[in-house]
Amino acid sequence: MKNRIERLRSSFTDEFDCYLVRSPVNMLYFTGVSGGTMLIVPFDGEATLYVYGVNYEQVKADAKHCTVKRAKHWNDFTTKLQEQLSEQNLKHVAFDSMDFEENRKLRTVFTSSINLEPKSEYVWSLRRIKDDGELKRMRTAAELTVKGMEIAQEKMIAGLREFEVAAEIEYGMRIRGSQGVAFETIVASGPHSAFPHGGCGDRKMKAGDVVVVDIGATYQQYRSDMTRTFVVGTPSEKQKKLYAVVKNAQQSAFLGMKDGEKAKAIDTRAREVIKNAGYGKHFVHGLGHGIGLEVHEQPMLNSRSKDTLRTGNVVTDEPGVYLVDFGGFRAEDTVLISQNKAERLTNGLYDL
Amino acid sequence: MKNRIERLRSSFTDEFDCYLVRSPVNMLYFTGVSGGTMLIVPFDGEATLYVYGVNYEQVKADAKHCTVKRAKHWNDFTTKLQEQLSEQNLKHVAFDSMDFEENRKLRTVFTSSINLEPKSEYVWSLRRIKDDGELKRMRTAAELTVKGMEIAQEKMIAGLREFEVAAEIEYGMRIRGSQGVAFETIVASGPHSAFPHGGCGDRKMKAGDVVVVDIGATYQQYRSDMTRTFVVGTPSEKQKKLYAVVKNAQQSAFLGMKDGEKAKAIDTRAREVIKNAGYGKHFVHGLGHGIGLEVHEQPMLNSRSKDTLRTGNVVTDEPGVYLVDFGGFRAEDTVLISQNKAERLTNGLYDL
Repeated sequence: MKNRIERLRSSFTDEFDCYLVRSPVNMLYFTGVSGGTMLIVPFDGEATLYVYGVNYEQVKADAKHCTVKRAKHWNDFTTKLQEQLSEQNLKHVAFDSMDFEENRKLRTVFTSSINLEPKSEYVWSLRRIKDDGELKRMRTAAELTVKGMEIAQEKMIAGLREFEVAAEIEYGMRIRGSQGVAFETIVASGPHSAFPHGGCGDRKMKAGDVVVVDIGATYQQYRSDMTRTFVVGTPSEKQKKLYAVVKNAQQSAFLGMKDGEKAKAIDTRAREVIKNAGYGKHFVHGLGHGIGLEVHEQPMLNSRSKDTLRTGNVVTDEPGVYLVDFGGFRAEDTVLISQNKAERLTNGLYDL
Repeated sequence: MKNRIERLRSSFTDEFDCYLVRSPVNMLYFTGVSGGTMLIVPFDGEATLYVYGVNYEQVKADAKHCTVKRAKHWNDFTTKLQEQLSEQNLKHVAFDSMDFEENRKLRTVFTSSINLEPKSEYVWSLRRIKDDGELKRMRTAAELTVKGMEIAQEKMIAGLREFEVAAEIEYGMRIRGSQGVAFETIVASGPHSAFPHGGCGDRKMKAGDVVVVDIGATYQQYRSDMTRTFVVGTPSEKQKKLYAVVKNAQQSAFLGMKDGEKAKAIDTRAREVIKNAGYGKHFVHGLGHGIGLEVHEQPMLNSRSKDTLRTGNVVTDEPGVYLVDFGGFRAEDTVLISQNKAERLTNGLYDL
């Protein structure tokens, strides 16, 4: 199989003859290392990864599929880049993403004949489809996340503070090999649960509280994402009913997920279940998002998405219902899309 | 004292009559909340924070010094923004930072008479000077970080893996109230220590290893940053000597830090000590950086910096020496700049 840089190059069109990778995550994806400044992929010849002195020895030791060159600082780098473009007669330059001001500075260095255009879709078309090595890591990240959720369930104890529960979850994942959290841990109890991004503060949990726990482990740079809703003590009938609506919506979406399905249609499957139960306007976000090296990636699953699910996509399935005066409920799994079905990489622990 | 939005407005010049805050951290700085999409600060009248539905209830409940308006999605937001600019006859619009492609999309919506220019320095001139409320939080973050470093020192035990040490450090900070790590924890042992960003993997520490530990707690959104170098077991004479060079360089820089000093000159103070000891080319990065809501902020302390230190700056002081075949040594504190002196917010634990 071609390496990722070769696959990027294969996707080049007549529109451009050189691709600049500026996003740190994309540089990691193509070269296997963090700490580079920019990766230059010309149509012909070897790719070059420029790196500052602080990371030079480390990047030189570990980078794959490219030549590593040192740059002293930004101006030194841009001068060297312009020289390279000029030598190789590269004029139609595409890039993944760039800050507006940085882009402007680059243009002042480039000769006027060089055309510089954003083309992030060429990288996303590769990153959306996870290969076997990526899936292996994502399975481990998911296992670590499920372990964290088991700890969360054990810690649904009145009197504990939200951040104390987070400390136990994060330690449990970390000591088993998680590289760190995939995103800021959410342990949102009582009134905080009604906010989808309810955070994690110093509130003491009380008997009867709804608690939304949204967590993720990271394994060898790959992330996982899982949410469960718990109740401190015995759940009420209304709490049980609301969580059942959310779980039914999650399952309905899951059953529709497979290669070729429209992401928008999958969002609709979950939304219909919640709407039919009378809570449509309380499902205030999209159904889910791709996940991998970043916690939010393509494809997106929401009512405005134009994406189609494909084998090798890994996405979240996370409907929720949020009642400001009562509490919030969300159930989320990280899901792998295959030819005729989907597979939950996170699973279990569905009881309130 | 004026609130931060009023102070931003006071700094407006004839160059512009409206400021767009797009950076999530800057929105947090001005309004006290995360989750907004964009903050609009016109020269006259109230500031408006636009927010998507997913975060609307939470932002509406907590945002200060602004009106909160809901936007359904990006296109809905840009339409509303253009209407607001048009109604208030705002034509010279400055912004803090923006992705290149996003900026281009915004321009397609704006009428051609609207001028859109990056002016991040107006926000940085405020954020560089920490107020009393910020300093209180940063002192707590620093205390939590020192506690984490005490745990690190206790865990310099042969046979433990780097990530196991990280798990104990992070748990110790988290259970005492840290909101999470300020950046990815570094526990870089043996050969990894020779890389300034040596990470934290599954290597088992051995007797005689140098271990660079670079950690930070976060308290109420404010970060801290501290590095110590340890040795597993008894340090050798050469290890002691190299760390002494680094600590002397750190202290020399510290003694020069006060209001009015050039950041470049402070970097030189540390660099001279290391150069005189014969390791000049092994100090491969700048002396330090500002810190606050983000781990890397203005002012910068390096050989190319044009910054001048001012009372209320909080910066790191972190010289290092890295020998690829022997190991790396770094000592770092978070330091508050005052009128005639500086103060270490992190301190102690300087023994190998």
